[in-house]
Amino acid sequence: MTLLDLEDLDHIALGATVLGTGGGGDPTLGKLMAQQAVRRHGPIQLVSLDEVADEAWLIPTAMMGAPTVLVEKIPSGTEVLDAFRMVEHHLHSRAFATLSIEAGGVNSMIPMLVAAHLGIPIIDADGMGRAFPEIQMVTPSLHGVSATPMAIGDEKGNRVLLETVDNFWTERLARTATVSLGCSTAVALYPMQARVAKKALLRGTLSLARRIGQTLHATAAHEPIEALLELLRGRRLGQGKITDVRRQTQQGFARGELDIRGTGPDAGVSFRLAFQNENLLFWREDQPQATVPDLITVVDEQSGRPVTTEGLQYGLRVAVLGFPSHAQWQTPAGLALVGPRAFGYEIDYVPLHAST
Amino acid sequence: MTLLDLEDLDHIALGATVLGTGGGGDPTLGKLMAQQAVRRHGPIQLVSLDEVADEAWLIPTAMMGAPTVLVEKIPSGTEVLDAFRMVEHHLHSRAFATLSIEAGGVNSMIPMLVAAHLGIPIIDADGMGRAFPEIQMVTPSLHGVSATPMAIGDEKGNRVLLETVDNFWTERLARTATVSLGCSTAVALYPMQARVAKKALLRGTLSLARRIGQTLHATAAHEPIEALLELLRGRRLGQGKITDVRRQTQQGFARGELDIRGTGPDAGVSFRLAFQNENLLFWREDQPQATVPDLITVVDEQSGRPVTTEGLQYGLRVAVLGFPSHAQWQTPAGLALVGPRAFGYEIDYVPLHAST
Repeated sequence: MTLLDLEDLDHIALGATVLGTGGGGDPTLGKLMAQQAVRRHGPIQLVSLDEVADEAWLIPTAMMGAPTVLVEKIPSGTEVLDAFRMVEHHLHSRAFATLSIEAGGVNSMIPMLVAAHLGIPIIDADGMGRAFPEIQMVTPSLHGVSATPMAIGDEKGNRVLLETVDNFWTERLARTATVSLGCSTAVALYPMQARVAKKALLRGTLSLARRIGQTLHATAAHEPIEALLELLRGRRLGQGKITDVRRQTQQGFARGELDIRGTGPDAGVSFRLAFQNENLLFWREDQPQATVPDLITVVDEQSGRPVTTEGLQYGLRVAVLGFPSHAQWQTPAGLALVGPRAFGYEIDYVPLHAST
Repeated sequence: MTLLDLEDLDHIALGATVLGTGGGGDPTLGKLMAQQAVRRHGPIQLVSLDEVADEAWLIPTAMMGAPTVLVEKIPSGTEVLDAFRMVEHHLHSRAFATLSIEAGGVNSMIPMLVAAHLGIPIIDADGMGRAFPEIQMVTPSLHGVSATPMAIGDEKGNRVLLETVDNFWTERLARTATVSLGCSTAVALYPMQARVAKKALLRGTLSLARRIGQTLHATAAHEPIEALLELLRGRRLGQGKITDVRRQTQQGFARGELDIRGTGPDAGVSFRLAFQNENLLFWREDQPQATVPDLITVVDEQSGRPVTTEGLQYGLRVAVLGFPSHAQWQTPAGLALVGPRAFGYEIDYVPLHAST
């Protein structure tokens, strides 16, 4: 067990934004809310799955919706507690801890808020090892874990509880409810006992995020990108200037594409990136270089700091980095759930290190 | 307490279709399901509100969605039991009885199915005295009763529980969930204790529906329309031939308008009717003759049998009848909730007997 203080939250939020591959929302607001909760209630216990009794209930928490909306529609901070309690009420059980179902941006911080407010631990694990745009896109789906009972809360006090026949129906119903409620909600979902979580979750995600944040802070003055590539065993996919961003908020998602004109070693090369909340595909001269589920992160060319999809804009000088995804995602079942075709692209997964 | 047999269900389904003012769906399928349940489980107890202890819980049940879809998407019969039990589970209470929240077509029969299956009574009351297209459009709304906890079930086994800040939010969330689930669902909503129901509900609706059905059967050979007008103290608004029907299924509603060319005493007169699941407005030569919340029912010119909005078609010879709505609907609060403006029409309520 480790105690997380204000600085740890800074590091985790930054590191989770790297893992978030542009998605999960800008963590700033979530971090400020979590830090305020820590100031009031004290540091948060970070607990590894091995420290938890098999029968203990864990309830992940998150924000759901288009990050472009989240920036303008400020959560009250109580809707996520409402959602958490609604699942507890439905289970007739108290949860031992909460956790991040996705490691991206704001969703690394929302469970911190819950943990601090309720005085419960947060588990050092997540369900993606990165961020993804849809509910069923988590490793628990590969282990037959149901997303429901799932609760949805909004800042007005509306609450919705779902019990569905599969996780695709959960996504469909939760998405339309979220759109109805203003495109951004708080959710509690995938409640599971630790016995199941020990197989179904990816371990150590928050510790890794903290290490990434620490690395970026420590190396701010010299070679931050190289340090990041070494820590995450990644590749530099390209660097250049953003020359066009095409985006739309559609059915509760922030979708878009952007063009990058290469600079430095990549001078004269054209790159293209497609995103749907998260960065999904990266092309060099129309050849796919990196594909989901591998991690594609856009960072500032100088500072190495990650740029979220809503921060992408014309003229920004960036490097695009690729990191290999967790081995669970590279199985046939994993690729069926989160490979390029799951997002409507007619191309196959290109393993990061096999690309040229 | 009265026992309802197969013939009573025939009469109530027919009478409720008259009160349904074209909405609530064709009751045939619901009636067949309810009659099958009565054959298996025995007659249903019809209980008046006065016979129920104040603290007893009552949970109304219904189908929700566009009736045009309901005809093709056959319910399994278990989704309404799922929804009913989900509300019970959430309340941590067993319900004493169910009831019709609306008196229209299929929604007079769905609670019969629940009552027969679960061996519980049905209450002789409803929340509209007719049918309306939206959840908040019930007399309990005028008494501050919440539609939630409300449960929604589909034929696949998906279930949604709502707890909302007001009944407009319930309508919005339940409607989008229903559209997501294929435009037709089963619901349990407005759970209330009998103490509240005694003020908030309209009494005697099922007895009245039965009397309407008996009247239409008994007078099938002679003057059925006159008998109906006498029983419900209504007016004949016009008669003629349907010359055009314009309809669309939009956001989970069956919306439309139709034109009638007058015949007999109305020869040469043009009539127009607007509906949105239910018949809402009736014009004679562009002058409103009857307006929601008063009841506007289209019946076959010969048999006096009601025609639902999905049965409206070119060439049909019909009479259009108007019946005064319950006094609760004619208050300022009632008209704000279900007057013409609540449906987006820029005209005021025209009391039925004040029109020319």
